[in-house]
Amino acid sequence: MSRLVKVAAIQSDPKILEVEKNLDECLEFIKVASKKDAKLIVFPECSLTGYCFSSFDEVMSVAETIPGRNVNIVSSLCKELGVYVVIGLVEREGDKCFNSLSILGPKGFIGKYRKLHLPYLGLDRFVSHGDIPLRILDTEVGKLGGIICFDTRFPEAVRILALLGAEIIVLPTNWPKGADLVPKYVINTRAYENRVHYIAANRVGRERGFRFIGHSKIVHCSGVTLAEASISKEEIIYAQLSPEESREKHVVIKKNEFELPLFKERRPELYELICKKI
Amino acid sequence: MSRLVKVAAIQSDPKILEVEKNLDECLEFIKVASKKDAKLIVFPECSLTGYCFSSFDEVMSVAETIPGRNVNIVSSLCKELGVYVVIGLVEREGDKCFNSLSILGPKGFIGKYRKLHLPYLGLDRFVSHGDIPLRILDTEVGKLGGIICFDTRFPEAVRILALLGAEIIVLPTNWPKGADLVPKYVINTRAYENRVHYIAANRVGRERGFRFIGHSKIVHCSGVTLAEASISKEEIIYAQLSPEESREKHVVIKKNEFELPLFKERRPELYELICKKI
Repeated sequence: MSRLVKVAAIQSDPKILEVEKNLDECLEFIKVASKKDAKLIVFPECSLTGYCFSSFDEVMSVAETIPGRNVNIVSSLCKELGVYVVIGLVEREGDKCFNSLSILGPKGFIGKYRKLHLPYLGLDRFVSHGDIPLRILDTEVGKLGGIICFDTRFPEAVRILALLGAEIIVLPTNWPKGADLVPKYVINTRAYENRVHYIAANRVGRERGFRFIGHSKIVHCSGVTLAEASISKEEIIYAQLSPEESREKHVVIKKNEFELPLFKERRPELYELICKKI
Repeated sequence: MSRLVKVAAIQSDPKILEVEKNLDECLEFIKVASKKDAKLIVFPECSLTGYCFSSFDEVMSVAETIPGRNVNIVSSLCKELGVYVVIGLVEREGDKCFNSLSILGPKGFIGKYRKLHLPYLGLDRFVSHGDIPLRILDTEVGKLGGIICFDTRFPEAVRILALLGAEIIVLPTNWPKGADLVPKYVINTRAYENRVHYIAANRVGRERGFRFIGHSKIVHCSGVTLAEASISKEEIIYAQLSPEESREKHVVIKKNEFELPLFKERRPELYELICKKI
């Protein structure tokens, strides 16, 4: 085991359309987590805007470029405090919008992801499908792979990030009531099957008829839960992760007797159907 | 919802190398489950032979062809009772052997699967990699997709069975101590992410320094556990499944407000890396 990085998942309760208020709260959360020595701080999906939009026009009224005004404000605080932040927001590009996340660090803007798999729900009814291929962003706090909410339900997405070398998956999410099995089973499975650390930051609160279910989770690459938040409280959870630990895909339980070659035993020649539209 | 099929997972404790004794016990279990009206009965991996072999010669001493003597005996009972049985055993073909499962029904032998992904453990140190592509066997109790133990840890294998139209995944397994997170998280995730029913039959007992951890499970295609066995007792668990329910991959939680297109939202054009040897 090598260096340990303290990470945090922020379980917040953004208010729909109240961007200034939400931004101020995010900055406050970053200061609190940084005081506790967190170096990587992950926020929920749509932290700046809320999620349950009712029209495209309403979405566009709060969408912004990445980088852009608000991301730059968060970025300045990252520089000041020497921390990395992953934050979900609505991105505008020309006359399109995306459900995106932005990764910021002490040297400013690092990169972004756009949600690839869209449920028919809230914001996602109005955005375009993500068009940035799955990729890794290499940072001082680890090789990060980002996806957003529903993306995590597709094993292919996390598998690819892991094959690309992700050490930590960062997952801003907005799990509503009805998605309870995702924190209960899926997050741990994704960490376990790929041997990657997982930071899932969900929101809480009610918004336009939907209730969000918290249960933000930090899961070790062994599949074991390191920290888990409540179902309804705003709070921050923390854990210590060794990014390098995710690199070892050959799991030894008893040497020469019980070993699991997780990646070596993959049989890509049998998986072709996964890459076909059917 | 249409017809319901009563299914059973047998949690047994086979004794290494004692094939006659194990076979007799299997026949007994089938009679008991059939009396309780089970129509599909799933046994653990290596039900006829045990698992913790210490040499290739020892394995070959109990390996048999499929179909072959013992499979034919089980098959005769299936005909007599009008039931379907999935049973794990060691298969011999020429000078090779495989960790296989056989599916039998009221009309006799239906088909077999050979374990595709091999851990370094027990029997699997001595068998060849499975060479039968993933496929579905269409029966009166549903479209069945078979995999064995470690195969389930590879999301690709179950995804492909689901894409091929599997309604029920049958999983003979031998989870030892150390594999505890598979019944805890992975089985439910596989059912949930693919919307397929799952029957996982694990063994119990100790064998040459290994302890097997039970927790056989029947999981509904919604991801909810319908039946779960103890950690150490020989027992049978039962559930009622509607095979047709697995066919609907568009999950509606609130109509026109919260819908999850599980298969339609797949983005195969982004998944190419999964099919590459890296």
